[in-house]
Amino acid sequence: MARIHFGGDYNPEHWPEKVRAEDIRLMKEAGVSMVTAGIFSWALVEPRPGAYDFDWFGRVLDDLHGAGIRVSLATMTASPPPWLSEEHPEILPQDADGIRAWPGSRQHFCPSSPVYRERAVRLVTELATRYATHPALDNWHIGNEYGCSNPRCYCDVSAADFRRWLRERYGTVEALNTAWATTFWSQRYGTFEQVLPPRTTPTHPNPAQVLDFARFCDDALLRCYLAEREVLRRITPDVPVTTNHMPLHKPVDPYSWAEHEDVQALDFYQDPYDPQTHVLAGLAFDITRSAGAGRPWMLMEQAPSAVNWRARNSPKPPGTMRLWSWQAVAQGADAVLYFQWRATPGGAEKFHSAMVPHAGTDTRIFREVSALGRELGAVPQLAGTRSRPEVALLADWHNWWALEQGSHPSGDLDYAETLRRHYRPLFEAGVPCDVVPPDRDLSAYRLVVVPNLYLMNAETGARLTEYVRAGGHLLVSYFTGIADDHDHVHLGGYPAPLREVLGLRVEEFWPLAEGQSLPLTGELAGSGDLWSEAIDLEGAEAVAAFGAGELAGRPALTRHAYGDGVAWYAGTRLTPAAMRTLVDRVRAGAAVAPLLPGLPAGVQATVREAAGGSDGAGGAEAAGGPGERFLFLLNHGASAATVTLPEPMHPLAGDGADPAAGPVAAVELPARGVVVLQF
Amino acid sequence: MARIHFGGDYNPEHWPEKVRAEDIRLMKEAGVSMVTAGIFSWALVEPRPGAYDFDWFGRVLDDLHGAGIRVSLATMTASPPPWLSEEHPEILPQDADGIRAWPGSRQHFCPSSPVYRERAVRLVTELATRYATHPALDNWHIGNEYGCSNPRCYCDVSAADFRRWLRERYGTVEALNTAWATTFWSQRYGTFEQVLPPRTTPTHPNPAQVLDFARFCDDALLRCYLAEREVLRRITPDVPVTTNHMPLHKPVDPYSWAEHEDVQALDFYQDPYDPQTHVLAGLAFDITRSAGAGRPWMLMEQAPSAVNWRARNSPKPPGTMRLWSWQAVAQGADAVLYFQWRATPGGAEKFHSAMVPHAGTDTRIFREVSALGRELGAVPQLAGTRSRPEVALLADWHNWWALEQGSHPSGDLDYAETLRRHYRPLFEAGVPCDVVPPDRDLSAYRLVVVPNLYLMNAETGARLTEYVRAGGHLLVSYFTGIADDHDHVHLGGYPAPLREVLGLRVEEFWPLAEGQSLPLTGELAGSGDLWSEAIDLEGAEAVAAFGAGELAGRPALTRHAYGDGVAWYAGTRLTPAAMRTLVDRVRAGAAVAPLLPGLPAGVQATVREAAGGSDGAGGAEAAGGPGERFLFLLNHGASAATVTLPEPMHPLAGDGADPAAGPVAAVELPARGVVVLQF
Amino acid sequence: MARIHFGGDYNPEHWPEKVRAEDIRLMKEAGVSMVTAGIFSWALVEPRPGAYDFDWFGRVLDDLHGAGIRVSLATMTASPPPWLSEEHPEILPQDADGIRAWPGSRQHFCPSSPVYRERAVRLVTELATRYATHPALDNWHIGNEYGCSNPRCYCDVSAADFRRWLRERYGTVEALNTAWATTFWSQRYGTFEQVLPPRTTPTHPNPAQVLDFARFCDDALLRCYLAEREVLRRITPDVPVTTNHMPLHKPVDPYSWAEHEDVQALDFYQDPYDPQTHVLAGLAFDITRSAGAGRPWMLMEQAPSAVNWRARNSPKPPGTMRLWSWQAVAQGADAVLYFQWRATPGGAEKFHSAMVPHAGTDTRIFREVSALGRELGAVPQLAGTRSRPEVALLADWHNWWALEQGSHPSGDLDYAETLRRHYRPLFEAGVPCDVVPPDRDLSAYRLVVVPNLYLMNAETGARLTEYVRAGGHLLVSYFTGIADDHDHVHLGGYPAPLREVLGLRVEEFWPLAEGQSLPLTGELAGSGDLWSEAIDLEGAEAVAAFGAGELAGRPALTRHAYGDGVAWYAGTRLTPAAMRTLVDRVRAGAAVAPLLPGLPAGVQATVREAAGGSDGAGGAEAAGGPGERFLFLLNHGASAATVTLPEPMHPLAGDGADPAAGPVAAVELPARGVVVLQF
Repeated sequence: MARIHFGGDYNPEHWPEKVRAEDIRLMKEAGVSMVTAGIFSWALVEPRPGAYDFDWFGRVLDDLHGAGIRVSLATMTASPPPWLSEEHPEILPQDADGIRAWPGSRQHFCPSSPVYRERAVRLVTELATRYATHPALDNWHIGNEYGCSNPRCYCDVSAADFRRWLRERYGTVEALNTAWATTFWSQRYGTFEQVLPPRTTPTHPNPAQVLDFARFCDDALLRCYLAEREVLRRITPDVPVTTNHMPLHKPVDPYSWAEHEDVQALDFYQDPYDPQTHVLAGLAFDITRSAGAGRPWMLMEQAPSAVNWRARNSPKPPGTMRLWSWQAVAQGADAVLYFQWRATPGGAEKFHSAMVPHAGTDTRIFREVSALGRELGAVPQLAGTRSRPEVALLADWHNWWALEQGSHPSGDLDYAETLRRHYRPLFEAGVPCDVVPPDRDLSAYRLVVVPNLYLMNAETGARLTEYVRAGGHLLVSYFTGIADDHDHVHLGGYPAPLREVLGLRVEEFWPLAEGQSLPLTGELAGSGDLWSEAIDLEGAEAVAAFGAGELAGRPALTRHAYGDGVAWYAGTRLTPAAMRTLVDRVRAGAAVAPLLPGLPAGVQATVREAAGGSDGAGGAEAAGGPGERFLFLLNHGASAATVTLPEPMHPLAGDGADPAAGPVAAVELPARGVVVLQF
Repeated sequence: MARIHFGGDYNPEHWPEKVRAEDIRLMKEAGVSMVTAGIFSWALVEPRPGAYDFDWFGRVLDDLHGAGIRVSLATMTASPPPWLSEEHPEILPQDADGIRAWPGSRQHFCPSSPVYRERAVRLVTELATRYATHPALDNWHIGNEYGCSNPRCYCDVSAADFRRWLRERYGTVEALNTAWATTFWSQRYGTFEQVLPPRTTPTHPNPAQVLDFARFCDDALLRCYLAEREVLRRITPDVPVTTNHMPLHKPVDPYSWAEHEDVQALDFYQDPYDPQTHVLAGLAFDITRSAGAGRPWMLMEQAPSAVNWRARNSPKPPGTMRLWSWQAVAQGADAVLYFQWRATPGGAEKFHSAMVPHAGTDTRIFREVSALGRELGAVPQLAGTRSRPEVALLADWHNWWALEQGSHPSGDLDYAETLRRHYRPLFEAGVPCDVVPPDRDLSAYRLVVVPNLYLMNAETGARLTEYVRAGGHLLVSYFTGIADDHDHVHLGGYPAPLREVLGLRVEEFWPLAEGQSLPLTGELAGSGDLWSEAIDLEGAEAVAAFGAGELAGRPALTRHAYGDGVAWYAGTRLTPAAMRTLVDRVRAGAAVAPLLPGLPAGVQATVREAAGGSDGAGGAEAAGGPGERFLFLLNHGASAATVTLPEPMHPLAGDGADPAAGPVAAVELPARGVVVLQF
Repeated sequence: MARIHFGGDYNPEHWPEKVRAEDIRLMKEAGVSMVTAGIFSWALVEPRPGAYDFDWFGRVLDDLHGAGIRVSLATMTASPPPWLSEEHPEILPQDADGIRAWPGSRQHFCPSSPVYRERAVRLVTELATRYATHPALDNWHIGNEYGCSNPRCYCDVSAADFRRWLRERYGTVEALNTAWATTFWSQRYGTFEQVLPPRTTPTHPNPAQVLDFARFCDDALLRCYLAEREVLRRITPDVPVTTNHMPLHKPVDPYSWAEHEDVQALDFYQDPYDPQTHVLAGLAFDITRSAGAGRPWMLMEQAPSAVNWRARNSPKPPGTMRLWSWQAVAQGADAVLYFQWRATPGGAEKFHSAMVPHAGTDTRIFREVSALGRELGAVPQLAGTRSRPEVALLADWHNWWALEQGSHPSGDLDYAETLRRHYRPLFEAGVPCDVVPPDRDLSAYRLVVVPNLYLMNAETGARLTEYVRAGGHLLVSYFTGIADDHDHVHLGGYPAPLREVLGLRVEEFWPLAEGQSLPLTGELAGSGDLWSEAIDLEGAEAVAAFGAGELAGRPALTRHAYGDGVAWYAGTRLTPAAMRTLVDRVRAGAAVAPLLPGLPAGVQATVREAAGGSDGAGGAEAAGGPGERFLFLLNHGASAATVTLPEPMHPLAGDGADPAAGPVAAVELPARGVVVLQF
């Protein structure tokens, strides 16, 4: 992209056509450069099966183009019109109890439905043919928030599709029986025809069946996406394609989708009542950037202020919308877009804030939005720049699907929580990181952090072992390396694939009672909760031991020098403070320093750099010159902070920044303040 | 009515016929003057389709008449017999998931079912024809607690009826599309045939559809009632008709039903473990009286002591049953009836207290019941008298249906709670009030209180504005005046219909986090929770400001002199103490004084007056002479209280009252004590 | 049995056949003498309908026999194979909402299904015919944990079976109408065809219908068991038959099943995070022994360490598995078996501990298991010995089904909790007790404790009255003796069947508010919660009175000397300490002494005695000589304890026991320690 794009979802169909002139005038005033159009227009453009009415929509595109506004053109298939489920009620999804979800909101379709896919493809073909050469078309936005409300369907159509998927995966029913360990509880199948989705069962379901069904459901959604993408690739081979993911959305694996997306796109809605909302955002942003192999990405949706779907929806306090928008850019976004342009008076999202509120433009929201639009429009050189983290956090959606199943030692394990808990000490220390899946090449990282990677095949174990042997630093936490891809426990002592590199054996899992906490003793004090383990050292040294309970005196945290590297292990869930201490120490050993020494608490620092040359892979061209680097300083704290710079830098944008005044040695950041510097 | 009636539900079919002589003897002993008979007798009087057996029932009526006991004759349609759902399983109601409710309790019928209505009408025709001239017949009691257990049905029969209802309401599908804002999320309908009840959807349903469905469901129940009423009007045009409502029962709007009822009837079951149970009762009693335009009403059901359907069912401590019964009379009731006469050994309500307990008459319950029966029998002059409140509280069931929907700024809003919170400071100050719907003529009131009237059309806004302009005093609380009848937000700044009269604009809703509380500063201190708002003053003055949080220093409570009146606004939920302070101050400005100055805490005071003449509208004739006034003093507190009277009054009934002893200047009220005086 | 058997579930089908040699070698090392085989083998031995493959299974039996290991042979019917529900989907059970439970776990069959029963019988016939004379066969283990996951089915097949059951029970629909009190709420049935299971109703269901349905469901499961037992009795008349019950499992009445079982078997899984887990175990063990009329029983399943199905699954801390295993023996078990032999890598129970863990034999678990196996193998003389308690606690599953229904005075009543609360003071005082149903002969007991026996027919009331008159001591707690077998309240004052013996009348139930507690005053201080009652004394004396609340000053605990005995009554739920005081005092009056005076807190003491002669009734032959007695001392406390013996005894087994060293006068028990002595 040639600039940091700014704009949002534009749904002019909610308004009389005459409002559009005002819309476009206000968009210019607000610095809007890109809008997403058509997300929920299917019922309007195809009011009856096969009868299309695109005239009004064409006029929208023409007017936007006339104003120089680019369009991320939605394929309009996110929510089928009422006539489709009236004609084909079998497209309605069913839950595990067989309860149907009916029309009246959105996404009321079974992802496996051939009827839905066929009608969606027909619409996309019509749409793409019609606007293939429209000058406003910037990129295609397929569907919308896949799997937000229909992530899993257990209907008979899905059951047949699941069997097809299993046949492809396993070939024979014997292979499926082995993979699913169906000898247990007399579940052995004679034919594929006997296999069902994991519908409601009398008691604990088969965990491998549940895991495969999660994979299948993600795949069914992906195939909806791919069916549309195939049309677009054929008709508009040069137009980039994307879809907007939801952050840390368990049903959809962003890594497996990424290879089919030209640019990553994320929706993120901060909760102002969560004091850690920016840390969670940081994690989601890093996942999105990492899924796209470091390419700039799009913040496809955020709220100008409050949302409407939490139990209590706080507006974004003054300055935070700007701060959190800049955070996306600081972590690699080249677009900051909102849901939505103008607040509608009706519908389920009427109390979701919009760029133009119900009260119009004489409002704090419109003023903050417009100011940010101007600010982002002034720094085109940031577009296309990238970051180079030295640390990788491993995240794996398949592990998520397996880890949180029932009938485990503890039902308290929460993968999103553990990812956040391991990410936070890096974020707060000002240490950038990538968040990558286990099969990614890790050799370029100095430190790899592996939180609760329960599902780990022997290959991953071997790669992590080799990584340390070759000099890497590894931090692994409890209940990692337990089961293989089919959720079969690795025999021979936990965690079998990592015992050698970690230098230990876990003899028994000892999950803690609700509210229980254990003190740690030794070099690294603190306390742990939720989980403990009986660890037998086999080469590792104990860095801390449990200070109470049945495991008193036994190792809690260990360190193992192995080959040219070091492998650490945490056998309990550390409190945030203890986690910070541990990660700081591990990081020091790995010689991973923060971007800025002495960063004040609450201040985030990131760097984006212009590429030395082209690195292909759909990466947009950087506007900045080769080698240029940009430092982002964001104050998430409650009070002003002074940041001393390691070298004089040129203020480029932000609070008190005067690009004309020359380099500065320090920056004064007000609370919720942002400064961007070039060096 | 010629007296304050006393009695209860009489279900002699549970007992051998020979028990009836004892029943009637005990009824006389207990002062019973009226019973309700036949509520659940359908299966007995029509044991097979069309085969009637009324002989036993006729003998019951004859015996009651012989003892001078009047009968509120139930139409027997509250619960269909097993043969009806066996023959027509499609009458069983379904929830939003499609789960059927089966026979085995009561009210297992779809309110839209033509089969149910047709069979009910047939039974009522038979019943009314048979007993039209029976001398025991006092009034008709149609159905029973409409919508208690089957308030909403989502079955296909209901779906078809809903479409019929929508066709009548909207005429064209285009009009429905506009009203429901179906452009949102691609919900636009091509035909009415595509429309469904708001069955379970993948995510947030269409709020206008949900609101209309609530209206439709209330209407479906009302049409059941009206189908029976039409029969009764035809066969017994001079016999009054009623049905017993439940208090603050969200599915059924008492105001819209009232025009079809000759006398209002209410069931109220105090919870002795709720220290505010009498305040809630007071609110429900005032709603009932106000729905009937001030006419005397019937307390159709209360418990002699404990109920059986709460999680923990306390008996009514000694004296409270009498106290709370007198409270109903003090607030306008001309009948005090119970569920039920004699405790049954079997069935789901066997542990519900009855006038004659399982242990018989040598019991506290029977003694307290009998004493009250004698007491109420001695004051016929109270019957037909009325009250004249100066304050109106606005309550609106349509608003309830809209306010508590999801996808709002806060999910914590609870309409029954907010009504109670605004009612309590009036109740505790001894200030009578009516509780009326927004379309009622308000000109006679000095003060109108409007709690959380989210749904407010422009007409209501104009009427409230005109009310203040003409000298009225108005107190409005947060999240009022937001949306129109179709739940479309009024554009142009909240609360658009009231901005002029309130002299302010609400720029943003700022719902508070769970457990969060904000101090207030200024003239009226205290604190608020649950909600705050960013208020821009446009003529109003700030009476209090928020003392902390993002809105610190901005107005929290405002006052606006407008025309000849004053409009107050509360932008947060006040604690009960702060609410009392505010309402006292507003009331003082409106010159609304308590009935008695210096009323001790815990003592309730009300006045009923004999009509100066007839005021028609089905009002019963007053037994007291024209102009006679009666003061009721009820001590809800835990200790005795002395009430000084503004003038000497004649003790008529109650604790220590000696009608023969002449006027008194003060009254000594024991805890749980009651005194009635004439003046 | 000729020894205390030791072993567990053996599922060799999970492993390659070559693993079996190691299995058998390790079994010998661990002292295994008995295994259960085949529990979930149906899908393997009958992979297609009627096509049997028993070859592999026969080799398993042969190898076990070769090693001298006895087999408790499962009938393999616990979980049907996928082909059965594929062919007959109508066998899938449905809940009260009509939601089906699908295959994929276990027990996915409707207990009333004739198809399931017919296929099960066919399999058992095949199995029994094949192995009738196999030398490894020790006993038959029918099904598995009946009703664990499919306790109640509401499908149409069940409905028809329920009607059949009702026809048998009541004969005429009039009798059913009377029993169910169907006059209430117009529920009167015209024909049996109209009757349904208590499926989801609009509001409170008919309590007698719910109670009868609970009876029917238990009976449907029992008929599954009996169908198989009939086959086994025919083919192998001399082989004992059992099935493993779950402890305090509400759907299945162990007392009614017992007459059809040759030996009782129980599964018990201690929760190490419950500090009272051994008391609950003690209760369950005593129920199991009492159901079998005192015969030795089998602990059919326990975990070697952690289970996998709680929210947080603690391993068993070192020593506790041994301690709790000995507890079973101390309370009458002649077998200590585990689920399962070898931990499987896949399936829903892969994290359930096993005798051979995932890590193999170099583990704490295998070491503790093997040590216990050796220890139990050394005391064959304990087998067949019995105990002779002087106290009986009454427990009644029908009462459970009635007591916990809705629409009662309080929803807080929890029958399992109240049984535990009344059992604990006996357990902790070292007083053995039987736990028997109300129809058992009580004459041999000195004291009978009756907790919350709400459902009590007149006959039971008369028998308890006669028991006291003849000199027995009786302790009854609140809400006892209220309703008859059809859940009809006994009229005439609560608790009618016991008023005479207790010397009182309960006039009103006064359940307490949540968290409310009332002090008691009088001879026996303390406090009560959850419940209180208005008690009128009619001969009894008040031992304690309520010290606050509406009932202040009225009796809370009473004592009534009646005939030659004494009847006590508790009108509130006492705290554990007050309960201990009361029970100690009642016990003292009844001259029931603990087994050992001055038993240290936390130490359990029991005695088993060899039979003086044969007492028939399927009792196994005692290995010890006539009259030999064994004292078991188990330290459940956290610190060591010294137990002084009333006479010198011979240490037989356990901590520090040296059988060769002669009698001792005292025993030193470490924490979690066990000692067995002979005297």
